Amino acid sequence: MIGVEQMRIVPALLAWLDLAGIAMFAASGALAAARARQTIVTFLFFAVVTATGGGTVRDLLIGAPVFWMQDSRALAACLIAGLAVWMTPRRWWRPKALDWFDAVGLAVYAVYGAAKALAFGISPLPAAGMGVVTACMGGIIRDVLAGEPSILLRPEIYVTAAALAAVAYVGLGELGVAPQIAAAVGALAGFGLRALAIGRGLALPAYRG
Amino acid sequence: MIGVEQMRIVPALLAWLDLAGIAMFAASGALAAARARQTIVTFLFFAVVTATGGGTVRDLLIGAPVFWMQDSRALAACLIAGLAVWMTPRRWWRPKALDWFDAVGLAVYAVYGAAKALAFGISPLPAAGMGVVTACMGGIIRDVLAGEPSILLRPEIYVTAAALAAVAYVGLGELGVAPQIAAAVGALAGFGLRALAIGRGLALPAYRG
Amino acid sequence: MIGVEQMRIVPALLAWLDLAGIAMFAASGALAAARARQTIVTFLFFAVVTATGGGTVRDLLIGAPVFWMQDSRALAACLIAGLAVWMTPRRWWRPKALDWFDAVGLAVYAVYGAAKALAFGISPLPAAGMGVVTACMGGIIRDVLAGEPSILLRPEIYVTAAALAAVAYVGLGELGVAPQIAAAVGALAGFGLRALAIGRGLALPAYRG
Repeated sequence: MIGVEQMRIVPALLAWLDLAGIAMFAASGALAAARARQTIVTFLFFAVVTATGGGTVRDLLIGAPVFWMQDSRALAACLIAGLAVWMTPRRWWRPKALDWFDAVGLAVYAVYGAAKALAFGISPLPAAGMGVVTACMGGIIRDVLAGEPSILLRPEIYVTAAALAAVAYVGLGELGVAPQIAAAVGALAGFGLRALAIGRGLALPAYRG
Repeated sequence: MIGVEQMRIVPALLAWLDLAGIAMFAASGALAAARARQTIVTFLFFAVVTATGGGTVRDLLIGAPVFWMQDSRALAACLIAGLAVWMTPRRWWRPKALDWFDAVGLAVYAVYGAAKALAFGISPLPAAGMGVVTACMGGIIRDVLAGEPSILLRPEIYVTAAALAAVAYVGLGELGVAPQIAAAVGALAGFGLRALAIGRGLALPAYRG
Repeated sequence: MIGVEQMRIVPALLAWLDLAGIAMFAASGALAAARARQTIVTFLFFAVVTATGGGTVRDLLIGAPVFWMQDSRALAACLIAGLAVWMTPRRWWRPKALDWFDAVGLAVYAVYGAAKALAFGISPLPAAGMGVVTACMGGIIRDVLAGEPSILLRPEIYVTAAALAAVAYVGLGELGVAPQIAAAVGALAGFGLRALAIGRGLALPAYRG
């Protein structure tokens, strides 16, 4: 979900990893459509919205050109992933395996989103917020459209892991740490926290007032 | 839902047809409020959101000025349509008749949306997606706000017809067909497919996994 | 929810009042999370979305830089308000008291939103609409995310009061009345109408077809 500008300066490998991440998120959207026994058109729509939603909201908020408008490849990756889920047996798509891929995407996109916001001159605190938006908003929009309770309303640690990754990246950068190191620490911290949620059921306490 | 810029260069007749199309969509929004036995303010809000939603999301995504901001007429058309539904007996508004007007709007706005996106330098595949967004997003937002299951979650052919119109227009253009012919073929194909859904109940198969 | 540009030219007192208004809206978002017995992360998310939602949608529609991107203070005010609701006993937050603060914010932001839209060259009718969006959209997004019936679907006078404030401000300005006077009349009229709804249960009639 990084922008076209950045794609030019990152090595081709990273650009392909980015497309792979988009396809992963798109597959999770198509699987939400599968759970609701929808049609192929809904599969594709959910794939696109889930994979592009977070980066789209971020780009609108920071005033950047929306990342999937200048290049047909990101949208093509979403459509292919949606089609793949439609055409393959559902048992191929194990929830646990998907959770782990999603955890990688969550941590990486939280850092990417914050970095892109900083590159567009956004203040540190909202920039960290843009990391959370990039990582989580696509899934929230998907759940609202599908009429499912969104991840926001579950105690499971998810948004928190994205926030940790983004805040660590922005905070370490403010302290003078080199961007590559801040990015690695942020992504690993976010992934580690999310891993505890998947592996051990780590959750946040609910309000008791 | 075309932009102010385009309105200057299309003949006045088309500009009035555009306002008529906006008013039709607005009436469908107000009728959703009528089904839910809402107040006049909700009628007007739903009329505006339904009629402007698709074009607004498209304009934000492609980086165009939002089409109803520079000119009070589009918003006035929405408010007048909402008021008309409020003040007239409900039996005047036959669902079947509305479906046919809506089918015309769906096909025409899908082509318009794709054409406007191409005019703003958007790549072909996302430009076709902008046609779908223009035609369908207003209705989806309306359904989410009204708490009704959105057209996305029904097997009925609707989004598919918009996609056919937009993809045919963009695809024929890529093949070198003149824009006017591509637009006519796209709009007719989309309208024809939607007509089969209204007249004969054509629907997509659901996922069986 | 006014922009950074305006903040520079209004006295510091108004800038602080603006932050106080944002914090009030944020607290109402956090209280929605409290009603649903959510976690701290959901408290903060709802606080941010409720307080910034209306101004964000307005800024996107009128083509202004999103107001909370260039300055960490607005977002910090939301997070502090959300944290305050989480850490204090719920009985401190009386619904009636909150309703009165919310009524002040509703009327003031409706006028601000319309004024900012006019300052960005938006036509009078959509500018009045932007006042309504600024005042009401954050609460509507909050309700949709929380799965509660939105204020839009209740007969209580709320959106109407925002519309009265915005239309009075824009209309008086069009008639040549000085902006300060138009703003005062608009805000007082909107607050007065909302006060009748809170104090005496004034509501709109529902559609009977």
